[in-house]
Amino acid sequence: MNASTHQTGEDIKALLKEWQQGLLAKDADRMTRHYSEHVVFYDATPPLQHHGIEAYRRSWELIFPHLPDKLDFEAYDSDITVSGDLAVVHFLNRLIDANTKDSATCGWVRVTVCFKRMDDGQWKVVHEHVSIPFDPMSGKAVFTHQI
Amino acid sequence: MNASTHQTGEDIKALLKEWQQGLLAKDADRMTRHYSEHVVFYDATPPLQHHGIEAYRRSWELIFPHLPDKLDFEAYDSDITVSGDLAVVHFLNRLIDANTKDSATCGWVRVTVCFKRMDDGQWKVVHEHVSIPFDPMSGKAVFTHQI
Repeated sequence: MNASTHQTGEDIKALLKEWQQGLLAKDADRMTRHYSEHVVFYDATPPLQHHGIEAYRRSWELIFPHLPDKLDFEAYDSDITVSGDLAVVHFLNRLIDANTKDSATCGWVRVTVCFKRMDDGQWKVVHEHVSIPFDPMSGKAVFTHQI
Repeated sequence: MNASTHQTGEDIKALLKEWQQGLLAKDADRMTRHYSEHVVFYDATPPLQHHGIEAYRRSWELIFPHLPDKLDFEAYDSDITVSGDLAVVHFLNRLIDANTKDSATCGWVRVTVCFKRMDDGQWKVVHEHVSIPFDPMSGKAVFTHQI
């Protein structure tokens, strides 16, 4: 990894950190500061896909009332790849109740985020995919609380 | 999009087409011809993540016996972004029974595929994420057969 690529990886980490801080503060404006107007979002819950930053923002605003007052964020097996004007990040994460240390939502989710550097030099999220697996025999989502 | 980027987008389409033809032929070797040894795969069914081309191949070999004899493949809302040595593709797709035209598995899935151009110039899939959403009230996977 050369110096320039390394710098870009650090830039992407900083954007992810800001998204995470926005989430812990339940601040959708802060979470979406680095999202493209035209982001295509595959969420863990329906619909099959969301188009646009407003739909992304609303999906979080619907979740906020169901989250505990004080949240923590755990990530695992994170990978960042950057080349040219694209960056792809994938990781497992879960939200936990900072007081009880229990999962705050559905346990561990799989997250893939794609950033694109725009003409003004700013990195924006153009695609995000968040999910949990399902059991094809029972048709039920499979929650994982420990990995 | 300049000529070089356009060419690369066509290269990626050709690799996707080969994967699709491998799937229709239930030929896991052909499907994995352009996969990295170290691919990280988030599948629609457990576990949370698979590491490596052999785990990817096995996941398909387990599905093949449950598929109808004659398959077709439908894709919708496909997007390909290429820059430097990275390419990200996302789309909705479903497998259908070519005779009945019904969904062959769980209906429409969301698919994100990340390709990386390796040192030898060959593009390889380094990450893939396939999922369907779940209903947080019932805990059940939400199958979509018509979009």
